[in-house]
This record gives sequence, structure tokens and C-alpha cells, in this order.
Amino acid sequence: MASVRRVDHLAIVVEDLDRALAFWRDALGLPLARTETLPEQQAEIAFLPLGGSQVELLRPTDTESGIARFLAKRGPGLHHVSFEVTDLPAMLRQLKARGVRLINEQPVPGAGGSQVAFVHPESTGGVLVELCQPAAKPRRVQHGA
Amino acid sequence: MASVRRVDHLAIVVEDLDRALAFWRDALGLPLARTETLPEQQAEIAFLPLGGSQVELLRPTDTESGIARFLAKRGPGLHHVSFEVTDLPAMLRQLKARGVRLINEQPVPGAGGSQVAFVHPESTGGVLVELCQPAAKPRRVQHGA
Repeated sequence: MASVRRVDHLAIVVEDLDRALAFWRDALGLPLARTETLPEQQAEIAFLPLGGSQVELLRPTDTESGIARFLAKRGPGLHHVSFEVTDLPAMLRQLKARGVRLINEQPVPGAGGSQVAFVHPESTGGVLVELCQPAAKPRRVQHGA
Repeated sequence: MASVRRVDHLAIVVEDLDRALAFWRDALGLPLARTETLPEQQAEIAFLPLGGSQVELLRPTDTESGIARFLAKRGPGLHHVSFEVTDLPAMLRQLKARGVRLINEQPVPGAGGSQVAFVHPESTGGVLVELCQPAAKPRRVQHGA
């Protein structure tokens, strides 16, 4: 049976990245691993690792993207929580069989070669949940001694 | 310097605990460690451990508590994210010195002997953040061999 391993990341939509970093990086002391601008999502994202998980701060770079519309409608706050699962296709079948409302019935490509799928907040208790499976590590060829 | 160790838990306010457990426990497969009714918070809470963190599902048991008012105003969803810190009093001083808006300027008692303090969403990017420091483990007396 597919299972959940850990909280992968918390994605928080913010209006002002510098102001959010003043809390998460400067005051709380999380390291800022990197900042990326993702044209396909029309967002600038700051990645702050935290004990095996990560805080991601998302700032929309336009006014039409999903993230921009989320911000306009609901204000800054949690966009989604992402959980790492062991076998995403099997997990999605397992959820579907239980009547869970999926936004993605099949995995879609995520960051860094991962596969992801979103679960509708209606099924989770009001939280947008992302399930992710990291890219498989290349298998090492074993050489004889 | 005080620092953040990990995501301790995600607290999600729900209307119907059985319906939420149908997703988190039955479909996703998280173990249900226990369910507790906390009279002082007027809430029933289900605790589901997850890779060093925990998902907590909160159902208000009255209509007047903070959790009940949150549910009435905003609907089900994330109530707060809790992070474990190494030295809560020092962390609160550190945050205050940076101008972070604290809900609790001093630690208050949390569950299981822990100390907790809340940071106002205004400073975090719209997310209610709890900082917690677990109860100190009793020091073992060293006996000579």
C-alpha cells in the first residue's frame, strides 16, 4: 500500500517577498536556499529548508495566474501543504477508490523531476493538499571488487 | 541563537471529524494515535503522526470558542502551523527585537508540558504560526559502573 512519508513543504502566498523574508529568514533564522522565478507559474519562489521539510514563499509576478487570483481573493496565507508519498500512482488509485475528490487524477510533472498531484480541499477539511513523489535516484552500477 | 528544528504539527479545523478521518486516516493511511476532548479548548482533537510531524484535526464542541468562531467565519481549513524551536524565550526575544508581532510575548503552557507562543499572521505572510518547545526530558542520574 502506498503511504505518506513526511511533510515535504508548506507553500505560502505572499504579497511582498522581502517582508515575508524579514520574518522567516531574518527573525526566525531559516536559511534561504534559493530564490527562483518560474515563468510557467508566473511566480517568484523563495525556498527555506527546515528540518527535512521546507517553507516556500510564493509571490505572483503577474495578476492573472492562479497564485495571483488566490492572493486577490483570499489575501496572503497558506496555499497548499505538500506531503511526500512512496508511490504516487498507487496512492491516487487508493484515494479514488475511497471517493476522495482529486484535482489531478494522474500525476503531473513537478519541480526537479518530481511527480505531483493535488487533492481538492473539499475532501481534506479545507486544505489544498499536494502529494509528491521525488524523482527516482539514478541506480548505481555495481562494479566487482 | 535560538533556532527552528522542524514542523511540529499542522492544526486543521474541521466541521465533521469522521469525514476528515475518512481522508487522513482511511484514504491517505495515516495512523490515528489518539482522539482527545479538551474541555478548556472546547474541542475534540484527533492526532495523526506523520514522519516526525503530526496532523491535528480540531472539531469545536461548542459554538463560542476561538476554534468555533474560526470555523463559523472562515470555514474549515488550516488553523495554524507549529514549529519546534530550541529555546522559546530566546526566540521570542529575537522576534520581538526584529519587530515581529507576537500574540504571546511570553511562553504559555501547551499540551504535554510543552511551552508555546503564537505569532500574528500579519508578520508571517498570513499564516498563524505557533512556536513550541517540548517539555525537558528528566535528566538521568548517572551511576558509576
